[in-house]
Amino acid sequence: MKHLLSTRDLDRDTAIGILDVAEDMADVARRAVPKLPTLQGRTVANLFFEDSTRTRLSFEAAAKRLSADVITLSAKGSSVQKGESLKDTAQTVAAMGVDAVVIRHDASGAARTLADGGWIDAAIVNAGDGTHEHPTQGLLDAYTMRKARHGDASRGKDLDGLQVTIVGDILHSRVARSNLWLLTTLGAEVTLVAPATLLPTGAATWPATVRHDLDEALAQNPDVVMMLRIQSERMNAAFFPNEREYAREWGLDDARFGRLRPDTMVMHPGPMMRGLEISAGAADSARSLVLDQVTNGVSIRMAVLYLVLAGGAA
Amino acid sequence: MKHLLSTRDLDRDTAIGILDVAEDMADVARRAVPKLPTLQGRTVANLFFEDSTRTRLSFEAAAKRLSADVITLSAKGSSVQKGESLKDTAQTVAAMGVDAVVIRHDASGAARTLADGGWIDAAIVNAGDGTHEHPTQGLLDAYTMRKARHGDASRGKDLDGLQVTIVGDILHSRVARSNLWLLTTLGAEVTLVAPATLLPTGAATWPATVRHDLDEALAQNPDVVMMLRIQSERMNAAFFPNEREYAREWGLDDARFGRLRPDTMVMHPGPMMRGLEISAGAADSARSLVLDQVTNGVSIRMAVLYLVLAGGAA
Amino acid sequence: MKHLLSTRDLDRDTAIGILDVAEDMADVARRAVPKLPTLQGRTVANLFFEDSTRTRLSFEAAAKRLSADVITLSAKGSSVQKGESLKDTAQTVAAMGVDAVVIRHDASGAARTLADGGWIDAAIVNAGDGTHEHPTQGLLDAYTMRKARHGDASRGKDLDGLQVTIVGDILHSRVARSNLWLLTTLGAEVTLVAPATLLPTGAATWPATVRHDLDEALAQNPDVVMMLRIQSERMNAAFFPNEREYAREWGLDDARFGRLRPDTMVMHPGPMMRGLEISAGAADSARSLVLDQVTNGVSIRMAVLYLVLAGGAA
Repeated sequence: MKHLLSTRDLDRDTAIGILDVAEDMADVARRAVPKLPTLQGRTVANLFFEDSTRTRLSFEAAAKRLSADVITLSAKGSSVQKGESLKDTAQTVAAMGVDAVVIRHDASGAARTLADGGWIDAAIVNAGDGTHEHPTQGLLDAYTMRKARHGDASRGKDLDGLQVTIVGDILHSRVARSNLWLLTTLGAEVTLVAPATLLPTGAATWPATVRHDLDEALAQNPDVVMMLRIQSERMNAAFFPNEREYAREWGLDDARFGRLRPDTMVMHPGPMMRGLEISAGAADSARSLVLDQVTNGVSIRMAVLYLVLAGGAA
Repeated sequence: MKHLLSTRDLDRDTAIGILDVAEDMADVARRAVPKLPTLQGRTVANLFFEDSTRTRLSFEAAAKRLSADVITLSAKGSSVQKGESLKDTAQTVAAMGVDAVVIRHDASGAARTLADGGWIDAAIVNAGDGTHEHPTQGLLDAYTMRKARHGDASRGKDLDGLQVTIVGDILHSRVARSNLWLLTTLGAEVTLVAPATLLPTGAATWPATVRHDLDEALAQNPDVVMMLRIQSERMNAAFFPNEREYAREWGLDDARFGRLRPDTMVMHPGPMMRGLEISAGAADSARSLVLDQVTNGVSIRMAVLYLVLAGGAA
Repeated sequence: MKHLLSTRDLDRDTAIGILDVAEDMADVARRAVPKLPTLQGRTVANLFFEDSTRTRLSFEAAAKRLSADVITLSAKGSSVQKGESLKDTAQTVAAMGVDAVVIRHDASGAARTLADGGWIDAAIVNAGDGTHEHPTQGLLDAYTMRKARHGDASRGKDLDGLQVTIVGDILHSRVARSNLWLLTTLGAEVTLVAPATLLPTGAATWPATVRHDLDEALAQNPDVVMMLRIQSERMNAAFFPNEREYAREWGLDDARFGRLRPDTMVMHPGPMMRGLEISAGAADSARSLVLDQVTNGVSIRMAVLYLVLAGGAA
């Protein structure tokens, strides 16, 4: 695997291969066994044009557990603010001797632009580009579902027939998109639930069922309910319901949570706004996989860095 | 030792135990001998909800000299600003695989809330919580006093009978509180000197002598004079003397410094505002232990990380 | 070499010695060979009172490839903003156990003040002080010119007779100054090209030819054309040409670039503002050494850290 730019272009076998390598990494990620020397002497650059502490820390932890060196460039106060182009920033970092670039950018397509430009030799890993994709999030979510379903017998398995309901601001969510493409590739059936104003116009052509009523969607007894994050910077926009309305119509409150099957998986990419998107009861329940997602994120990022840098086939 | 939350709940033997382990660490802290591999493969997370470069760097240096990995989360630009709770932030960082959380927070009690919540398995080290406590500062101050008094014969010793005068904004100072509890536990006698507006109402019940006149206090010939930092953000508040008045009434100027016994220890937790809290002459004199405090801070933090992570009894 | 404060006080042999050590480091800098253990257990502090992501990352990469630990203090949000003096900040960092201080400061002379003060034992490396000097930039530029001219036979060589034309805001450029002193010491002949308002009054006494017309200067067929960065914060000042005027009079556009000899070296310290100081065609041409400068910067900084810390004679 040379780069990881999106989940949309991953075929089933490659996707399962990444999840399987992440299984191999899990003991190291959890630190049940010592660090691996695999990427000793290799350098990973975190290029974060947009703040994201949790994604940055997860990649950083993953790189360190493979013994790579990490350098971090945040756009704030950097030459990016002095008018430098993406190309020049990337070439500059690459010229310092970097093997992989983990890039987070507010423009959709930034990671692919970087890869297609052929400007640098380094492997490119998309850590979120605009409203387009966040492929390691999709992979860690799929990993978490597979693990919850198959446990130690997960290896080689897909998500055939799994019913996954994704709820919230689909319009702006790269997490929803990366999940949609990957989950359907792995055989899951995806339902998207959102107010009409928070769905993209193209959603009708996506391989998903679209619904506008959360209670009806939950009445279908999905295996997984994934709540999306509301970006507070969008909250007062004209197209956006106000907070109270959002919580009432689109939040996983205690009443809705209580009507779910006891084995329904509850997921959220974080950070959570409790009481708005999800109640504390749901977030902290035994059915909640929110912290598993975080833990599995380190395994997935170890697997991805390993595959793009150590040259393995996924 | 599972956590370090305050000095108030340290008994005499535990406190002396920590200081003794710090003695063992001192040569490594000073880098007279190579790094210790003790915490190899362990991860320390610095969770700084409030900026404090010097405390963060000191913990970072301590962790690295014990070969631990360090990841740092500053509240600025992090999910904390997106409305995430302390509990969720801590659980998220812990889920990435963290063995100890060093937490700095502007709310008094934050570190204890984190420890009592039972939300995470990691060891908690309080690096300053509101106006409540800053226990590693208290410990490094006690270490510095003990070393100045007993030199190489410090091990096992307490501070019996040492006269310590703490001067300045006691009301807002966690440094004063952590020193007060620890020093009295170790047998020292503490005098607090401050204007009435900068003393908490409860100070009358503390195990300390309270004075409102610096010259009278210094005339008692204390063994240690510890000047506190003025937080400039408080300087224009109604209850606060103006700068010139503060320096005249509460500053350790050259005249006051000249009247001290030649062996009086002069201390300050830094950063110093020269000419306001302390004169350059006092700060740079042979009696000043300000830089010893910084150096000893690394030893103390190595000792604390060692004790909470390597499971030793202090 | 104890410190590196400026290129002005480097004699020819010392300068060539540094470039030669950088040659030795180049394979490690490029990671063709593994990291060197040379500075294991040593700590380098980056003290950046002024933001400069690319210089900071370059020093960080250099230190890590020599196996040193790195701690970074940015002035933003640090005790510097709480009114602490340079002396106290430096002494504090040094007291934590630091072997070398890499300092970037907005005041001309800051690095020398630190070295002359005798306040700390650590080696001082100037990473840019006001409009005064940026010696590692001068060194990496000289290295890049020597390498482009002599290739693998560079070792021991100087820049005798090389014609170097430096274009732009000379008044505010520490890069121009560090280059001027070093290049002339190494035997090159320097021409400075700038509008009269962007030249310092003392430039007439410098060992350089001063010109006010870029086309005339380029007609002399220089071996090297070095374009300087425009600092956007200066752009609207009264003495400054507007953008369009600047590009027309002082920019290396395609027409000017087309008139250069095919082997002219085109250089820029970055970050570049394409279309203003330099056209994309010039920046991306085979004659452009912009990325070589970045790569060589790591070698030069490895050499400098090695020389000041491992005590070698340059």
